[in-house]
Amino acid sequence: MFENKGRTELGELGEFGLIDHLAKSVKTHNQSTVKGIGDDAAVIENGDNYTLLSTDMLVEGVHFDLAYTPLKHLGYKAVVANISDITAMNGTATHIVMSMALSNRFSIEAIEDLYFGINAACAQYNVDLVGGDSTSSPKGLILNIAVYGHVAKDKIAYRSGVNEGDLLVVSGDLGGAFLGLNILEREKRIFLEKPDFQPDLEGNDYLIQRQLRPEARVDIIKLLADLGIQPTAMIDVSDGLASEIHHLAKQSDVGFTVYEDKLPIDPLTYQRGIDLGIDPTVAALNGGEDYELLFTIATSDFEKIKNQMDFTIIGHAVKSTEGLHLISKGNNQHKLTAQGWKGF
Amino acid sequence: MFENKGRTELGELGEFGLIDHLAKSVKTHNQSTVKGIGDDAAVIENGDNYTLLSTDMLVEGVHFDLAYTPLKHLGYKAVVANISDITAMNGTATHIVMSMALSNRFSIEAIEDLYFGINAACAQYNVDLVGGDSTSSPKGLILNIAVYGHVAKDKIAYRSGVNEGDLLVVSGDLGGAFLGLNILEREKRIFLEKPDFQPDLEGNDYLIQRQLRPEARVDIIKLLADLGIQPTAMIDVSDGLASEIHHLAKQSDVGFTVYEDKLPIDPLTYQRGIDLGIDPTVAALNGGEDYELLFTIATSDFEKIKNQMDFTIIGHAVKSTEGLHLISKGNNQHKLTAQGWKGF
Repeated sequence: MFENKGRTELGELGEFGLIDHLAKSVKTHNQSTVKGIGDDAAVIENGDNYTLLSTDMLVEGVHFDLAYTPLKHLGYKAVVANISDITAMNGTATHIVMSMALSNRFSIEAIEDLYFGINAACAQYNVDLVGGDSTSSPKGLILNIAVYGHVAKDKIAYRSGVNEGDLLVVSGDLGGAFLGLNILEREKRIFLEKPDFQPDLEGNDYLIQRQLRPEARVDIIKLLADLGIQPTAMIDVSDGLASEIHHLAKQSDVGFTVYEDKLPIDPLTYQRGIDLGIDPTVAALNGGEDYELLFTIATSDFEKIKNQMDFTIIGHAVKSTEGLHLISKGNNQHKLTAQGWKGF
Repeated sequence: MFENKGRTELGELGEFGLIDHLAKSVKTHNQSTVKGIGDDAAVIENGDNYTLLSTDMLVEGVHFDLAYTPLKHLGYKAVVANISDITAMNGTATHIVMSMALSNRFSIEAIEDLYFGINAACAQYNVDLVGGDSTSSPKGLILNIAVYGHVAKDKIAYRSGVNEGDLLVVSGDLGGAFLGLNILEREKRIFLEKPDFQPDLEGNDYLIQRQLRPEARVDIIKLLADLGIQPTAMIDVSDGLASEIHHLAKQSDVGFTVYEDKLPIDPLTYQRGIDLGIDPTVAALNGGEDYELLFTIATSDFEKIKNQMDFTIIGHAVKSTEGLHLISKGNNQHKLTAQGWKGF
């Protein structure tokens, strides 16, 4: 069946390498296709607006662990992750379709819980679940959502629009979802060793919530519109800040200088990071799943955002030849490496 | 994690039962949503047109067996199955997004083969692959495609539009894909017993092709338009003719009378059915995966289609109280039972 052309392991390319490699073989045939593979969502001509399309697959044992992920939360988070992709284009998600593959370990009641979460997220974000597919799975649960939305043509924000000198801004705070994951993993290990043990999640509510029940920052794109700010580029923080900065840099052909002391880290994230032996800066840079928005703005928009609590300016764009750097608290310059998810 | 509300096994509901059950919990929030769960595609307002959305998940070991399914063909078929859903709304597919989960058993070269098939189908149907997601899988290959298309508002064909007296028409011929599957399964069994054995697929090309490389009948909706025929309802034959007839009946609140001697069965399908001990009528009724179009038309359109080679009138709609029946070649009346896929 396989032609004799050698064998290259998936791990040699990694997720982003694989996508880049395969994307090269893909041609488009429709004039309506404005942007295909390579941004948070695809962009298609549609009269005064652009249509936005994106999709996301979640695999049990890879993206989630049902030992500590209630199915309600999983359903909610799966929808949020997709809405976040549309939000990252400065757009509005309106509809989703959802596929699931289920092993017979799941009961109807369990799937009702999953749907409870999906329906709750749809109600929260005014998004309609309009179709899907369900099938059996030889192992575990696989969820796929595809999301449909729109954006006004003059509002769209690609990854590729950064100009040298632009300010790099992030919403909310970072690293919390990663600390939440670590706390849940720790409790699972303890539980497996001592099943009588009561989980000790007290005082960690914020971090657990960041991991299990994130929100898409639709409030941020509304705020940007209210402030009269058009981001020059935008991406959501799903894989990790460093990885997202690399995407912006690559697609905009710029470099970035980022300041460690500017990274927005919640005090609880910071403290639990220290407690667990996780450098809070590393959590913020590489943790992922915070679903905050990372965007760039022209320096002329600085006055409009400087007093906004939800925004933190963490750096600025430089010439691509200058590369990507983190200026540490000790004022040393480090190469900023991307550690996006490499799951293979 | 699971609340104490008992446990109902998935198998108790089956696929369609599960979808119906879960769909009841789903509410829509957007006025633009014209039709949600329950047809071949979702229907969304979009100016002069409707937007159509659908999605389909294929799981290794459930929907395909890589022992005899070349990845090129799998990619092609996955795209075709999605386009067929848009075609069944009398619409045109223009864009897809694709997710895949892969175990490390797959090489880059294998995934290139998969993409070769996907790209070939996209070129064939003038559809653009504009985004996706790739991830690792603990077991096997899972593919999900979501498809985006459109249809003029006055051309849309739902499952729910059948009127009593309408003629029931199917394109092409039926049962071939099922016979092809049986031939491939037989060769696999022989191969597993005697690895030196050369597969004997000669003379079965048509059936193998029906299984491995089906086409979406976009030519049929063009032909209907050219003939000036607006189908009152339409569905594609993916699960099996009997199952699709049940969908039309349920959603249109009608019954159907179908004539066994009218079922379009290719002579090769018929002969190999006899050879393999498979009743050709059962293959045609329950085989599935033919991706033909099943539709109803007003009797006043009879003159327009009666000489069309691609169409076969197989029955007509009756009052719902009369139920669904097959009139056998021996002129006996049998209840027409649906045997759609129940994979759990």
